[in-house]
This record gives sequence, C-alpha cells and structure tokens, in this order.
Amino acid sequence: ITEGNIFYYIKDDEDTFKILIATDIHLGYLEKDAIRGNDTFVTFDEIMKQAVQNEVDFVLLGGDLFHDNKPSRKTMHCCMEVMRKYCMGDRPIVFEILSDQAVNFSHSKFPWVNYLDSNLNISIPVFSVHGNHDDPTGADGLCAIDLLSCAGLINHFGRSRSVEKLEISPVLLKKGNTRIALYGIGSIPDERLYRMFINNQVTMLRPREDEDGWFNLFVIHQNRSKHGATNYIPEQFLDDFLDLVVWGHEHECKIAPVRNEQQLFYVTQPGSSVITSLSPGEAVKKHIGLLRVKGKKMNLQKIPLQTVRQFFIQDVTLSEHPDLFSPEQPNVMLKVMAFCQEKVEEMLEEAERQRLGNSLTPEKPLIRLRVDYSGGFEAFNTMRFSQKFVDQVANPKEILHFIRHREAKDNIKDMDFEAILSRPTSEVLQLRVEDLVKEYFQKAEKNVQLSLLTEQGMGKAVQEFVDKEEKDAIEELIKYQLEKTQRFLRERRVEATEEKIDEEVKGRAFKEDLMQKMKLYNCTLDLNEK
Amino acid sequence: ITEGNIFYYIKDDEDTFKILIATDIHLGYLEKDAIRGNDTFVTFDEIMKQAVQNEVDFVLLGGDLFHDNKPSRKTMHCCMEVMRKYCMGDRPIVFEILSDQAVNFSHSKFPWVNYLDSNLNISIPVFSVHGNHDDPTGADGLCAIDLLSCAGLINHFGRSRSVEKLEISPVLLKKGNTRIALYGIGSIPDERLYRMFINNQVTMLRPREDEDGWFNLFVIHQNRSKHGATNYIPEQFLDDFLDLVVWGHEHECKIAPVRNEQQLFYVTQPGSSVITSLSPGEAVKKHIGLLRVKGKKMNLQKIPLQTVRQFFIQDVTLSEHPDLFSPEQPNVMLKVMAFCQEKVEEMLEEAERQRLGNSLTPEKPLIRLRVDYSGGFEAFNTMRFSQKFVDQVANPKEILHFIRHREAKDNIKDMDFEAILSRPTSEVLQLRVEDLVKEYFQKAEKNVQLSLLTEQGMGKAVQEFVDKEEKDAIEELIKYQLEKTQRFLRERRVEATEEKIDEEVKGRAFKEDLMQKMKLYNCTLDLNEK
Repeated sequence: ITEGNIFYYIKDDEDTFKILIATDIHLGYLEKDAIRGNDTFVTFDEIMKQAVQNEVDFVLLGGDLFHDNKPSRKTMHCCMEVMRKYCMGDRPIVFEILSDQAVNFSHSKFPWVNYLDSNLNISIPVFSVHGNHDDPTGADGLCAIDLLSCAGLINHFGRSRSVEKLEISPVLLKKGNTRIALYGIGSIPDERLYRMFINNQVTMLRPREDEDGWFNLFVIHQNRSKHGATNYIPEQFLDDFLDLVVWGHEHECKIAPVRNEQQLFYVTQPGSSVITSLSPGEAVKKHIGLLRVKGKKMNLQKIPLQTVRQFFIQDVTLSEHPDLFSPEQPNVMLKVMAFCQEKVEEMLEEAERQRLGNSLTPEKPLIRLRVDYSGGFEAFNTMRFSQKFVDQVANPKEILHFIRHREAKDNIKDMDFEAILSRPTSEVLQLRVEDLVKEYFQKAEKNVQLSLLTEQGMGKAVQEFVDKEEKDAIEELIKYQLEKTQRFLRERRVEATEEKIDEEVKGRAFKEDLMQKMKLYNCTLDLNEK
Repeated sequence: ITEGNIFYYIKDDEDTFKILIATDIHLGYLEKDAIRGNDTFVTFDEIMKQAVQNEVDFVLLGGDLFHDNKPSRKTMHCCMEVMRKYCMGDRPIVFEILSDQAVNFSHSKFPWVNYLDSNLNISIPVFSVHGNHDDPTGADGLCAIDLLSCAGLINHFGRSRSVEKLEISPVLLKKGNTRIALYGIGSIPDERLYRMFINNQVTMLRPREDEDGWFNLFVIHQNRSKHGATNYIPEQFLDDFLDLVVWGHEHECKIAPVRNEQQLFYVTQPGSSVITSLSPGEAVKKHIGLLRVKGKKMNLQKIPLQTVRQFFIQDVTLSEHPDLFSPEQPNVMLKVMAFCQEKVEEMLEEAERQRLGNSLTPEKPLIRLRVDYSGGFEAFNTMRFSQKFVDQVANPKEILHFIRHREAKDNIKDMDFEAILSRPTSEVLQLRVEDLVKEYFQKAEKNVQLSLLTEQGMGKAVQEFVDKEEKDAIEELIKYQLEKTQRFLRERRVEATEEKIDEEVKGRAFKEDLMQKMKLYNCTLDLNEK
C-alpha cells in the first residue's frame, strides 16, 4: 500500500494538497513571565503567517494549542486575534469535503467545517485534535478549542463520546484527483487508550469506495516514547493501512518522516513550537512542516521557526577535570564557578553567532548547564551566579542544574506522611498530588468503613482540580459519592436523612481536613455551598 | 430640543431605526443550580430571537451581559452559540456608520463594526457597553465581551482609557433621513464617575454638522438610585441635549421612558432579564424594549419576556393577626407555620394561573415570604417547611425570610476583630472583605512603620480578588509595593538587597497571616512563586 509513498518532488498543482503541520503550540505558557511571556503568541503568529505565505489548503494541528485547560482571557484573546487575522479572507478554498460532517463534528453546536459556513469567510481552515493540556473536562464536556470552534475559527475533530471504544470516522477530503482520509484521536490517558487497543476497541473506519485510493493521514496526541509498560502507544498498534502519522505531544522536533518498517507507514513528529522544559529534547531546532500530498505520494518540507527562543544545554562532569580542580583544593568552589561561567559564556557566544542577522529571534536565549558534581564536590549558591547573566539570559535563575550520579533519592513510599508535610514546599511540590492523597487515605483510620470518598475517585478529582483548575471536580465527586451512599443506605432500609448521612460519613470533618492538607500544596478549593 | 420627542406611532419604513434594547442579562448566573442553571441562557436566546423576529437594525445592550467577570467556559460557549445563531445571516444591514470607527472602537484589535467586516456575514449587529460584572480587569485590560468582540460577535463601545477624564465620541449612525448619535459609558465605580462629573471631566462630543439634527441616545451602567452621597449618578449630571437615556445596572424593569423634567430627556430602565435577588424590584414583570426612532421622534414598545422564571414576593407581619395567633399560645409555632404555608400556596396558585398556556415559562416559580416576627414571636426551622415545596418552588430553601423591625443590628465597628473571625461563616460573609482587611490593618502593630502594603491598596486588591477572581491582583499589588519600598530605601541610601527588605517588611509572615485570615471568608489565593 505504502509503496508509492516516498519522498517525491511534488509540483503545486490542482491535484496537490498543501497542508501546514504543527503541534504543541502551548499558547499561554509562562504568559506572566516578563521576558518569555509573549513567546507562544509570537510563534503562533509566525506559524499562521507561514500558512498564508505558503498558500496552504489547510492547517493541521496535533493538540495542545493551549497550555492551560482553562486558558486565561488574554491567551484566548490572542489566539482568536491571530486566527481571525490569518484564517479569514477571500482566498478560495479549492478542496471538497466528502464525509458526513455531522458525524465528523457531531459534538459541535455547528457540526460542519467552518469554511462551508456561508456566514464566515474562511481562507485557511484549521483542523485540530485536542491535546492533554486542552482536553475536555467538566460536566459540559467542553474544551478550550470548542470555544474557537463555536466562534467558527477551528474545526475540532477526533473527539469520541465513549471511553471504552473508539470508532474513528475519517474526514474525507478531495482536491482534484487526490483524496485524503484524515483520522484523529484527541488525547486520551495513555493507559486507557493502550487498553482499548489491546482489547481491539479501536476501529478506524474506511471509505467504502475505492478503499485503496486514499492517502490515509492520522493525527495522534499521546506518549510515543515508553514511559511505562502501558503508558504509551506503540506504533505497531496503529493500522497498517495508514500512510502518514502526525504524532503530537512529544516536544522534540523529529519532523522528518521515519518509516516504521513493521507497519510500513511513516511517522512525523513535529515537536512543540515552544520550549517548556530545559531538557535536551527541547534544544533540537524547532520546525513546522509543509506537507504536500498528490495521489498517494507525499513530500514533507521542513520550515524552521524563526521566532522560537534559542536554547542551549550542556553537561559538565566536574570530576572529569582533575587538571582544573579537585575537591580538596581550598578555593575549589571559585574555580568551579569560573569554569561554569566560561561554559555559559561559550553558549551565549554560540547563541549570538547563530542569531546573527535574524531579527525575529528573541535576544535572550535559554541556557542550561547541567553540572555533575559527584565525587566530593559541593554545589554552590546559584544566586550570585545568576546575577551575572540577568541581562543576557531568559532564564537567569535556572541556568545551573546540579546533579549527582548514583545517589538514590529518598524513597517516598517509606516515609511518614507527617514528615512529608513538614518538608519545605519546593520539595513537596515535586510529588504528585495524587500520590499524597493516596498516602493519606492509606493512613486514614480503618474503622471509617463507610468512606464518603473512594481513594481512587478522590485522587483523580484532586489531580483534575490541580491540573485543570476544574473548580467543580471535587464538589461533583462529593455529590456523586453522597448520592451513591444514600442509595446504599436506602437499599439497606436505613432511614437516610441527609443529616444522618452527613454525620455518619463525617463529611464536613473530612472536607476541612482535606482543605488543611491541600493548602500545603498550593491547592485551594472552596467546598462551601454558595 | 426634545420637544418633538414624544411617543408617536412610528411606521416601519426606510427612515425608521428599529433597535432592540435589553440589559443585565447576567449570563451564567447560578449556572450550577440544578433548577435555575439554564435560565440565563434560555432568556438570552429568547431576547436574540425577538431581535430576529422583529427585524431590528441592531441590538443595544446596557452592560452585564455576563454575570461573572471571568465567565465559565460553558457560559462563554452558550453565549457565542446564541450570537452566532441569531446575529449572522444574509439579511442586509440598511444603516450606515458615519463616525470614525477607529475612534469608537479604538481598544479593539479589529477597530471597526463587525457588520462591515467582509469576512463576517452579520445580520444583526449587537452594540454593548460593559457593566460592573463584566468590566475590564487585569494587566491586559480586557473584559469578557472583548472575547466576543475579537470573535466578531459584538461591538464593544463606550470604553475609555483614562480614569480621570472622559471624552465620549458617539457612534454616528444613519438610516434614510434619521441620524442617531449613540453615546455610552461602560461601568465605572460610581464614586469615581460622580467625581468626574463634579469636576467637569466628562465631555460628550457632538457631531459638527447639523448638531441638532441627531437623535441622541445614551447608554449608562451605574447606580441610578442613591446608595450614598456620591455613590450614584444623578440624572441631572447628564447633558440636556440627550433625547433618550438607556439606564443599565438597575434590575427593576421600568422600561417605559420617564421624562426628566429638568433635563428634558427621557430615561428608560429596561431592568435585568433574570432575577438575581429575591427583592421586590425583581418581582416586577420583565421586559425588553423595541425602540423605534424616526427623525427626532421615538416610540418604545415593551416586549414581555416569556422565559423568565416567575417570582412572587409577599410580606406578612405576625403581630397584625391577633385573631389567628399570639406569642403566648402553646402551639403558636404550628399555627404560624400553617399561616405561612397558606400564603405560599396562594402565591403558587397565582403563579400557576398566570403561567397557564405559556409553555415557555419555567414551571417552578421563585417564591419569597418575608415574615416580620417582631412582637415576641419566634422564628422556626425552615428545613421542614422547605421540604413541602421542594417539587413546586425553584428556591425551596430560601422561601422564608424572617425579619424583625426596630431591632438594631450589631455594630461591626465596635467589635473585636477576633470576635468577628470567630463568628459563623454565614455571618462573616455578609461583611465586605474590604472592611475586614481595613479592620485588620487598624489593629496591626503600630511599630511596623515600613508597611509593605498600604491598607487601601490591599483592601482593593483583596476585593478584586474576591469579586473578579482576579488571581493576580494581590501578587501584582505586592510586586508594586515591593518596588516602591525598594525605591524608598534606595533614596535613603539604605543598601536594599532583596533579602534585607524581605526581612524588614516581614513579607512572608504577612502573607502567611493573610492566607490564614482569608481562608475564613472562603477566599483562597496562591502567593507562592510558580
């Protein structure tokens, strides 16, 4: 099937789809940062401008357009501004949609592609699945891109109503003689999707007519690298009739399509357009892709992003420089500092060299020096060190990262809960809130048999509260559990007055206790009735 | 000027503006309520449908389209859905705009009326000022309706950049031979606007050409009734060249224009389209207005809203019924309960009678019985009472309101702060957070001369935090004050290292203390660095 599917030179003609591919734009990431606050907005502008300049047929996004599940007003405003500016206009759309739009966009209040809405003059349609950062939450099951979709600015596809079973109806597109079947799965917790695949609950429907005549394009937003036995999606889970998989979620730019020799499809991983962690993967030059598809042939042209802040990362191991310093020397720390400073300066010079002549790239790069100080060296206060680079580096306070090899971290599981709570906040914050709740419940008195809240449910609700700012997650869980408890009591013919249950399950006491605990992790909630 | 300005019958012709007038729609009010949750969305739908059915030229809103400064995703989604559904379409717009749109909409990223944007097919433009509930906040100076404006769904006017001085450039509209000068002031704290008027800092600019040939329409969203010496806007502050003032903010429907005999203009107060408090003003039947303007003549047709939940309120004074019961009787409480029950049932019957045949009106009305129990009577537990009406009334828990006359309330000013804090939450909540902060600062030790935060600034920030969910208000205030303090120290040649200042002002201790206090008012905040 994929035989013809290699990298041809493809002429732009009436049979050629031109598709701009990008993912993980994370609008609003660090929006309060004085230096980096506008980075995501500027780069989104660059991406959409590229779409216009390259006269693409449409833009295809792989999820996480927004960084926060509930984007700030400013972020939403910036996003809508950019989309209205670049996606609307008089340039005609020259491809058709053949599939049933009411199926493809069944969750939308306006279940059709925006460019066929006679009230909107769309010049560049944007198709997107949702990512894990901007996935649907809450009772209304809405996500951030649904606001864009309601405003007619985006076409949100790849959304499923079921959590047990996926049946993916492709968006069928036709330009001249080229036909694309566009499949997508919006972000789903990896373990759950893994299980669905294992249980054969994921079906990709195929067009009845001329099944093999389509270019099959699939967008997914999941872990691609193995984070745990079932905490990722192996490529071989995906159907082998696919031609190209656009893999979102992973931030490292590996945009050049790589052939999966088992499934015989190609995978392109565009990577994020903003650096959200100071890790080596994010230091790879950021690109978006210009995908051309003609018949079953494709070509993916890499477009380097100009506005992305530079990021340089380097590792040094102090013990590998016995000629320069040793732990015993009296002034070793000063020497190490000078050494680190030199490394940072080297990176800054390299950054400046590479930036030369490119006025779009922000002036201050991100710099990280990972210092392995094992072997008797001591870490030093980074405060004074940072001071030197405050005008040159975008992340002065985080330049240095001291690491030690072969030194086991404290095992949280063995620790006392109270001991955890008495730790400084910075340490506690590195734990998952979920783990803490779990631990808390494990320690809770065993005689509270009629527990109002299950450990699992509570853990999930708290996590959602923290991750998604989903204010009602906990309240809804409590309501749900209360009803469940009432049913339980009713079935046992206990006279279940509200007061009695309340008393029995010590709901209030529990809530207050929880609030106390949550304060420690900067979690805040309001459980009082309004 | 206003001589011709009385209530003519006006024929719908090419010179007649038809304008739908509504205000205080409060989208999202009680959106989590199981019974009333959808009320605001349903009524907004009714209002916009009326605009379509009456083929109006435009809709004019008086502010508070949204109830919350940061509307929930669901609310924003519902709002955009309704607007896209009713405001877009092929019906042509037959009036012109003559003023400089870049001035009228200077704060917008798309500074022109939406119906002249060639990418949007608008059939009914909506013009709105912002209210006090949805006013601009935060560093970006955006408000909720700016999202709609960015999406091309609303025309947000009446916004000023200055807080000292207002110069209002009208939106100038022309249909046939009729010309309207549309003025607006988005909500401003009453005291501030009062002061601006007093200081002659409010100027309404007038069109140069044929100054007297315009129908001058003005939209304001302020207190109309006197809440304090300077806590409202007297009608006589407004220019006397105006023809009609649309007064938002006040929830009682007094939509029939009333002539101000001093200024010789008319004032219409449409009132809210949802009942947000169980007070007599809200029990007045809700209407929107269909305003016709031809030349200098106008006519305002009242349109009753069908979807608004009914609200009945009644006052009873127990001591006025000596024939029925007296405080000394042994079973007086049962008799009083029966009496109250009867009154509620009367109201329910009246509600049903009035609702007959109107399928759009929600089935369960709002009911309030205010019971004056002075003269030795005792209030009773409303729990059991509520139970009886749980299936018939939309607000079963709030039906009864016990009041006593001539019994002074505790004077907060004389009370100990600790005593206030130890009160039950429900009582404390009735105080303004601002007052509590003020009190707290007054009690703070006098020797903390170098106070990090001024009482006034802190009070304001806390209030904003609570009212507007403005997460950054407090953080920004602290930053500002820290910088101010650093300047202060620098000027005195004190070596102002950050640590030293931090120590001196006991910033951390203060923050922690504040967090403790705020917990008591269901206020939560996150002052930790992220």
